[in-house]
Amino acid sequence: METAQNVEIKSKGIPGSKKRYQHGTLYPIHVPLREIQLTPTKSKQGLEVNDPLYVYDTSGPYTEAQYDIQIQKGLSPWRDAFYLESDIESCPAPIHAWTFSKQKIWRARNGKNVSQMHYARNGMITPEMEFVALRENLSLNKQRKDNGKIHAGENFGAGMPKEITPEFVRQEIARGRAIIPSNINHPELEPMIIGRNFLVKINANIGNSAITSSINEEVEKLIWAIRWGSDTVMDLSTGKKIHETREWIIRNSPVPIGTVPIYQALEKVNGTVEDLTWDIFKATLIEQAEQGVDYFTIHAGVLLKYIPLTAERRTGIVSRGGSIHAKWCLAHHQENFAYAHFDEICDIMKTYNVSFSLGDGLRPGSIEDSNDEAQFAELKTLGELTQRAWKQDVQVMIEGPGHVPMQRIQENMEKQLHECAEAPFYTLGPLTTDIAPAYDHITSAIGAAMIGWFGCAMLCYVTPKEHLGLPNKDDVRSGVIAYKIAAHAADLAKGHAAAQIWDNALSKARFEFRWEDQFNLSLDPEMAQSYHDETLPAEGSKLAHFCSMCGPKFCSMKITQDVREYAQAQKIETEKIFQEGMKEMSKTFHEKGSEIYQKI
Amino acid sequence: METAQNVEIKSKGIPGSKKRYQHGTLYPIHVPLREIQLTPTKSKQGLEVNDPLYVYDTSGPYTEAQYDIQIQKGLSPWRDAFYLESDIESCPAPIHAWTFSKQKIWRARNGKNVSQMHYARNGMITPEMEFVALRENLSLNKQRKDNGKIHAGENFGAGMPKEITPEFVRQEIARGRAIIPSNINHPELEPMIIGRNFLVKINANIGNSAITSSINEEVEKLIWAIRWGSDTVMDLSTGKKIHETREWIIRNSPVPIGTVPIYQALEKVNGTVEDLTWDIFKATLIEQAEQGVDYFTIHAGVLLKYIPLTAERRTGIVSRGGSIHAKWCLAHHQENFAYAHFDEICDIMKTYNVSFSLGDGLRPGSIEDSNDEAQFAELKTLGELTQRAWKQDVQVMIEGPGHVPMQRIQENMEKQLHECAEAPFYTLGPLTTDIAPAYDHITSAIGAAMIGWFGCAMLCYVTPKEHLGLPNKDDVRSGVIAYKIAAHAADLAKGHAAAQIWDNALSKARFEFRWEDQFNLSLDPEMAQSYHDETLPAEGSKLAHFCSMCGPKFCSMKITQDVREYAQAQKIETEKIFQEGMKEMSKTFHEKGSEIYQKI
Repeated sequence: METAQNVEIKSKGIPGSKKRYQHGTLYPIHVPLREIQLTPTKSKQGLEVNDPLYVYDTSGPYTEAQYDIQIQKGLSPWRDAFYLESDIESCPAPIHAWTFSKQKIWRARNGKNVSQMHYARNGMITPEMEFVALRENLSLNKQRKDNGKIHAGENFGAGMPKEITPEFVRQEIARGRAIIPSNINHPELEPMIIGRNFLVKINANIGNSAITSSINEEVEKLIWAIRWGSDTVMDLSTGKKIHETREWIIRNSPVPIGTVPIYQALEKVNGTVEDLTWDIFKATLIEQAEQGVDYFTIHAGVLLKYIPLTAERRTGIVSRGGSIHAKWCLAHHQENFAYAHFDEICDIMKTYNVSFSLGDGLRPGSIEDSNDEAQFAELKTLGELTQRAWKQDVQVMIEGPGHVPMQRIQENMEKQLHECAEAPFYTLGPLTTDIAPAYDHITSAIGAAMIGWFGCAMLCYVTPKEHLGLPNKDDVRSGVIAYKIAAHAADLAKGHAAAQIWDNALSKARFEFRWEDQFNLSLDPEMAQSYHDETLPAEGSKLAHFCSMCGPKFCSMKITQDVREYAQAQKIETEKIFQEGMKEMSKTFHEKGSEIYQKI
Repeated sequence: METAQNVEIKSKGIPGSKKRYQHGTLYPIHVPLREIQLTPTKSKQGLEVNDPLYVYDTSGPYTEAQYDIQIQKGLSPWRDAFYLESDIESCPAPIHAWTFSKQKIWRARNGKNVSQMHYARNGMITPEMEFVALRENLSLNKQRKDNGKIHAGENFGAGMPKEITPEFVRQEIARGRAIIPSNINHPELEPMIIGRNFLVKINANIGNSAITSSINEEVEKLIWAIRWGSDTVMDLSTGKKIHETREWIIRNSPVPIGTVPIYQALEKVNGTVEDLTWDIFKATLIEQAEQGVDYFTIHAGVLLKYIPLTAERRTGIVSRGGSIHAKWCLAHHQENFAYAHFDEICDIMKTYNVSFSLGDGLRPGSIEDSNDEAQFAELKTLGELTQRAWKQDVQVMIEGPGHVPMQRIQENMEKQLHECAEAPFYTLGPLTTDIAPAYDHITSAIGAAMIGWFGCAMLCYVTPKEHLGLPNKDDVRSGVIAYKIAAHAADLAKGHAAAQIWDNALSKARFEFRWEDQFNLSLDPEMAQSYHDETLPAEGSKLAHFCSMCGPKFCSMKITQDVREYAQAQKIETEKIFQEGMKEMSKTFHEKGSEIYQKI
């Protein structure tokens, strides 16, 4: 196994922010959030205090000011303390006995079901449910004096409450409209909810391939991805050391980890698709469930009869998992084993609380192939599988495309809600055009924002390297930020109460030339500051009432402040104005020195 | 005046492309387009030729393989040859007699109107109209064997024809639904049309400010912006040497140049807004019209009575021009001189064929302020001014916001079409959230793509430096590409016939592992190739049937090709299959060596 010596990752706070924790009332849990501290507004009336802004925080302890990161030890397995002893037991003979830091591997006792959906349907509010309720609510912002106007959103029939309570969370989980991916073997997890009546989430894919990348790099990418705001991370490793890479990632991850188990199964048969068997696949699922993977992408909807529907496509099958299953089906002239053994898979899922992410193996890989027969046929099957999983109280989300032009995005969302009974939708983009490799974080952020608004619960990021190469750290950052933008734009459009407060705080800082606050309130404070400093690097210019774009004379913000102060002075002077008339007032103004912020 | 010695800009072709020209049938004009040459597809059936793709080309002669760029001479003033002598004369006493390369400054003869709208309404097809018809049509693509499926778009009541004819162009111009900004003193121009029944256009802003940037840099940015696809360029210079900077830009620009004349007028009074007068403004308009500016942003809709509507806003007035007019109105307690003298301005416009870009001086500067009373009050006035301009046959487009959350974008477009009688809309973004300074090319590309789909005719780019500093060359490139993506996504969604052919060509290249073709078909071939080469730099890997993302075993594209070939083999073998039955077939398959692309 790769040693930890050459992993050098240091804890680093986010500029202008402090890590804070909210405490549970039902359970002794500690929910992280980020407090963005703001400077006061200076005006002629004196100082006006600006309350700090609290934002959702996915970054784990790595952004604490003084956290001692020990990759080889992993994060604290705090969730262990909350497990119900009557429901779980330690695995007597785990497939991979060794894991590098954990003492025990858990599973449900015989006949028990430890899925969040099962607890929810039995009326129980779990610690995970209280955790996400506190996290979503950002209730500390309610104390803010200035939240400004919140525009009514349009949420396409979703039912967001004004306040997210643990009981509301429970109902949504029970209904299948939301999931909390939280394997009992991932006790390091800070739980997170995925559903369209909550904040829109994003996922970042990491993982090595046979060609490039090391374990260290992947752990670093994990910490990097969550620093910028990724809500879940998928480990899509396909090269050597799949198990070890994943072990490092999970033990150090405060966010849910997803995988595509067929990748590892295929490694076990040395890449020869025809040699795959249900038993190899099943053993892989158990191995990964024991390790703590929170959700599995399983392409159980790629049915033998759908494969010919892809033959005339522009780009055939572009899902790796989908193509593996398709090749296997054709080679054996048998039905997809993940479909054939679906109920057995559900048994595994509920034994560890692994959630399904039902894969869209036949998603379109080009604009031309969007919304075609193959895609929608598979979606219908995913709906059928959702019902089968729900029968066993197993949590489900549904993966979606891909490449879809704007006018066809809403149809995707509507069909998914209909076919899959409102199970959360989790889409890759979609990319709204094929012609911009190297910029597909942008082509897809457009589609992602739109489908998020229409009701998609989680958006899988696309990096600038998509279609071209494996993302490096810069690409991960670019992809995550592009998707935080898409998710937040969707939250705004849906009218999520916590969303617009952030925009208002930033716009107020901008308008008042509080440069440092503007940087700190940005999704990427470091980049915002470095861009500003490129043209006006001096410390003094961060106090300046103008910037390099227009210079001091042409600054509309400055003129507007004059206009505003003048309008205010006008109010005070209303009587006088009426007495003296407009012309007289104009004269007065000039006599006062032509500066409209003069008060008489 | 700045000398040309230190301007070093070299002609540089776009990789994989050749500059081509289409020739007019009504006039001896030469319309540039870019031919992207493609390599043949290699398959077991042999070589399949892939026809070249022809795309719209804004880059001027600078991308010709061997063009000798001489900034100090400017481009060839070829349009001069087409002017009607009965309509124009040389200015007897131009405001700035000297221009660095042109012999003559033209104006309409007394009583004449040289606007494209005037000619259109009089039934005349101008050389400019034929030029844009050829440009939009990309008719050479019709010869392509493989255009694939074209999805029906949804174009919100617009009336795009299948073929853009010069007569259709004339009708749209006459109706006011499209404009060709083409000052008779900009004979170097390659005309371009802006209207919602044509390809969606984009604009790049360049220009120095008092703080930074030089003339050389601005000319370089112009050439750079059009290389990446900007359809028009606005020179927003506010610092010293405004006239000289603009002269250099116009004389070297094949695309329409827009300005905001109030900026220069303000420089003439040393930045003291109150000292502005109608006469100074008027002289500035004439000076710029004589120089060849193709469209003027004029904030004639900022009326005295609307200014108090902005006082309670989160971010007041954020338009520079808007705030200048507002300050002036308040200081003098008089109506905006651009509104008061609007008919006189129209006289100037029609004398040179300058088009109005009626400025949205009261556009929202934050999500909270979107779609408010101030914004829509001004829009109504812009509608009134549109009618007044049309009475004099002057071309008009309307500027729009700014910062708008997704759920409020469509309302902007609908109101604009209604209030302004379908005059082309030209929006800045809009940004769909305020919280991502340093990434506002993305926050705004989302809004731009959507409003383009809904009917916006031109999208003004936003660079990553927006709100933070002046864009450099990299920022210009990022902004232009983000907006080309938005515009193309909109063209696709509207169902423009020429749009999807491009996506199909790229996706085919991708699916067939024609790496070089995939790069060359990209909006940014150089970036696409450099991203690919980061992980797989060897020449050989550009011939590889896999990439660094998945490696050879996991490549879905490769598996799909196997699936497709197998499906084809299956067709041929149909009879055999029926005879032998499914199981037998499977057995055969294994006997043949388990590789499904084997043909029996």
